[in-house]
Amino acid sequence: MKKAIILAIGNELVEGIIVDTNSKYIANKLLDFGYKTLMTKTLPDNLNLIVDEFKDSLKKADLVITTGGLGPTEDDLTREAISLALEKKLIYDSALGEKIIKKAKEYYKKVPEIVKKQAYVIEGAQVIENPVGTAPGQVIKIKDKTVIILPGPPAELYPIFESALEKLEKDEPLYTRRIKTIGIPEAVLVDEYKNIIYSNKDITVATMASYKTGVELRFTGKISLKDEIDTIVNKLIEKISDFVYSLDDKDIEEVIFEKLNSLGKTVSFAESCTGGLSSSRFVDVPGVSKVFKGSVVAYSNEIKERVLNVKKETLNNFGAVSEECVIEMAKGVANLFSTDYSVSISGIAGPTGGTKEKPVGTVWICAYDRNSDKYITEKHIFKGNRETIRFKSSLYAFNLLRRIII
Amino acid sequence: MKKAIILAIGNELVEGIIVDTNSKYIANKLLDFGYKTLMTKTLPDNLNLIVDEFKDSLKKADLVITTGGLGPTEDDLTREAISLALEKKLIYDSALGEKIIKKAKEYYKKVPEIVKKQAYVIEGAQVIENPVGTAPGQVIKIKDKTVIILPGPPAELYPIFESALEKLEKDEPLYTRRIKTIGIPEAVLVDEYKNIIYSNKDITVATMASYKTGVELRFTGKISLKDEIDTIVNKLIEKISDFVYSLDDKDIEEVIFEKLNSLGKTVSFAESCTGGLSSSRFVDVPGVSKVFKGSVVAYSNEIKERVLNVKKETLNNFGAVSEECVIEMAKGVANLFSTDYSVSISGIAGPTGGTKEKPVGTVWICAYDRNSDKYITEKHIFKGNRETIRFKSSLYAFNLLRRIII
Repeated sequence: MKKAIILAIGNELVEGIIVDTNSKYIANKLLDFGYKTLMTKTLPDNLNLIVDEFKDSLKKADLVITTGGLGPTEDDLTREAISLALEKKLIYDSALGEKIIKKAKEYYKKVPEIVKKQAYVIEGAQVIENPVGTAPGQVIKIKDKTVIILPGPPAELYPIFESALEKLEKDEPLYTRRIKTIGIPEAVLVDEYKNIIYSNKDITVATMASYKTGVELRFTGKISLKDEIDTIVNKLIEKISDFVYSLDDKDIEEVIFEKLNSLGKTVSFAESCTGGLSSSRFVDVPGVSKVFKGSVVAYSNEIKERVLNVKKETLNNFGAVSEECVIEMAKGVANLFSTDYSVSISGIAGPTGGTKEKPVGTVWICAYDRNSDKYITEKHIFKGNRETIRFKSSLYAFNLLRRIII
Repeated sequence: MKKAIILAIGNELVEGIIVDTNSKYIANKLLDFGYKTLMTKTLPDNLNLIVDEFKDSLKKADLVITTGGLGPTEDDLTREAISLALEKKLIYDSALGEKIIKKAKEYYKKVPEIVKKQAYVIEGAQVIENPVGTAPGQVIKIKDKTVIILPGPPAELYPIFESALEKLEKDEPLYTRRIKTIGIPEAVLVDEYKNIIYSNKDITVATMASYKTGVELRFTGKISLKDEIDTIVNKLIEKISDFVYSLDDKDIEEVIFEKLNSLGKTVSFAESCTGGLSSSRFVDVPGVSKVFKGSVVAYSNEIKERVLNVKKETLNNFGAVSEECVIEMAKGVANLFSTDYSVSISGIAGPTGGTKEKPVGTVWICAYDRNSDKYITEKHIFKGNRETIRFKSSLYAFNLLRRIII
C-alpha cells in the first residue's frame, strides 16, 4: 500500500487560530486510491521549516500533499519552499496570470498587484485551475513520487484535489466496512466483542467515539480480504443490532432523512437547551426540505408556554427539564407545524443551572408520532461541557426519532 | 522564545475519521506561557512511528505534548512508545489503578479488565489525575525539556492540561493584539494597509479569513514591543473601524450577547436557509438565556406564512428569498416572541435551487428593532458550498444585528 504525508501550512493552523480540517478530507479520499496516510503535519509560514519538512516527507512517502500558503500575501511561502526543496525554478505563467486577474475582478473593485504572485508555477508542474478562487493547484511527478500542492480554503481545495486525484496512479485498493452506533460505550463494545473485532491481524480496526456521531468501528484491509472483513462485520452486527444506525459513511441525520423521504413523511423539532443545533445539523443534509418543515427554538419558558402550548402547571410542577414538558413540547410543535413526526429536547447544558436533583447534563428527549399519537421519551445525564452535552443531546434525539420511525 | 511540538496520536486522526481540534486549543494556551508551537503532527497508533517522531520532536523543541492513545484498547500505544523513546520503564501504580477502577464503575456495569492498563506510569513522571475520564495525564522533565502526555477526548484533556501548565516554567511572555472584522476581504485589507500592518519586522502578523468568524489579524511580539504593537493596531483600527467587531478573542456572538445584556434587551431569530445555525451559534455563549428567547426555523413557506405571518402575496410576488420576505419574517418573530430585536435570514444555500436571477448563494438578511419599528436589510451573494454559505449568512446576520443595536 502506498504512503502519503499531508503538510498543512499556515501560521493560523500552528498558532491555534483555526483547525486543520482539510487533512481529514484528503486522508479519507486517498484510501479509495490505495494510499494510506502515514502522518499529517501542520507547519507555520516559515520557509526553512517548510523546506526541511517537505524534504523529509518526500523521503518517507510516495505522495506528499501540501495545503495552504498559496495566497497573495507575504506570508504565503509554500510555492517558494517547494521550489527550493525540489531545486526547481518558479516560472511566471503569463496566461495563467491573466486568468487570475480576470477572476480576481469578481472579488475586488481594484485588483491588488500581489495576486499575480499566484501565477508562478514550479518547473515541470501540471497546473490545475481553481474554479472558485485564484490560486491554482499544481501536480509534480518526481521519479515514482508525486507532489500535489493545494490552496488552503476548503471550498477551493475540494474541486482541485478531485482533479488532482485523476492524475494519481491507483494502488491495490483497500476494502473498508464501517459500523456506526449510538448508545453503547466504546470500551464496552471493544472489550465485550474483542474476539470478533480483533480476530484477523491483517485487518486494521479503528474505533472512534465522538459526541457528534456516536461510536464507529472501521475495518480496513486489502481488497483480497473482502470476505473475511464481511464475515467479521456481520457477526458483530448480529450482536449489537439495537445500537447500529449506519453501515456506511452516512450520519444519523442522513439516515433519518432517507427514511422519512421514502415514507413521504415530515418532521419538526422543538429545541430548548440545544438551541437550534438539531435543526441546523439536519439541514446539513441536501434536499432535506422534502421532509423538514422547521422548528421552534423555545429557549425561554415563556416561549414554551406561548408558542408550543406547554401548560403553565407542567412548568410549575415539573420544571422545563422534565418528561412532562418534553412530551408537551413535541406535541406542541407537531401540531403547530402539522408534521407527521416531531422531536423535543430540554435539558441543562451548563456550566451553571444544575441542581442536586437535576445536575448539569440532565436532558429529557421525546420523539412523537402525531398520526398514532404515540411517543417515546428518554432521560440522560450526559457528562462533558456545554458543547458536548448539546451535541450528545441532539445525537440521542436523532436516534430516538430513528427508533420511532422504524 | 521556547518552542513546542504537539503530537496528536490516533488512527482516527490520520485516517480521516475525525479532526484534531486539541492542537489548536493547546497552541493557543501555550502562547501565554511564552511557548511558540513549532509544528503539530498527527500520527497513527503505530509504535515505531510514534517512537521515531517523538525522539525527533524532543530534539527540536523544548516542550513536547502528546494527545491521545492513552485509552484501554489494544491500539492505544502512546505510553509504551514514550517509555521506549525515553528508555524509561512503565511502572504499574496500584493506588492509581484502584482509583481508575472506582471511577470506571460510574461508566460500566461491569468494569473491563483492560482499564487497568491506564494505571501504568512512566518512571519519574508526575501523574495528573483525570477529573472526567479514567486515563491520567503525565508530566516528565528531562534535563531542560518537558514532556506532557494527555488523553485525547477534549473534555478530559482540557482540565488535565490546565493543571500541567502550572508545572511549566514561563518564558518571556508574548504580547498579542487582535482585530476581528466582518465585511472586508483579507487580501484587500492586507494590500491596502500593508505599510501599517508590516511596519515592524519584529512583530509577527497572522492574517486569517474564516467563513465562521470573518477576517482576523493577529499581531504578536515580545512583551517589550507592547507599545509598538499598540501603535500599529490603533492606526489600523482608525482606518477600518466600520468593519471591526472585536479587539479581543471574543466572537461576534459574544459581542452581541454583552451588548444586549448591558442594555437589558432581548432578541429572537427567524431562520430559513440557515436552519437554526444562528440560534445554535448564539446559545454557545453561556448565560445567553438572559437575552435570547428563542427562534422559529421556518424552513418551508407554509411555516413562514402560518407561524411568522409572512403574507401569501409576498411569497407569490417576490419569493421567499426577497427583501420583502425577510422584513416580514423579522417582524413576525419579534412580535410572536415579544423581543426588542430580531434577525431574519432567507437564502439559497444550494447545491440546487438557484436560478439566473437568484443564483445559489443569494441571501437576504434583515435586522429589526421592534421598539422603534426600524429595520436594516442586506443582500449578499456568497460564494462557496452549502456549509460555507450558511455560515457566512449567519455571520453577516450577526453583524447586521450588531449594527442595529449600536
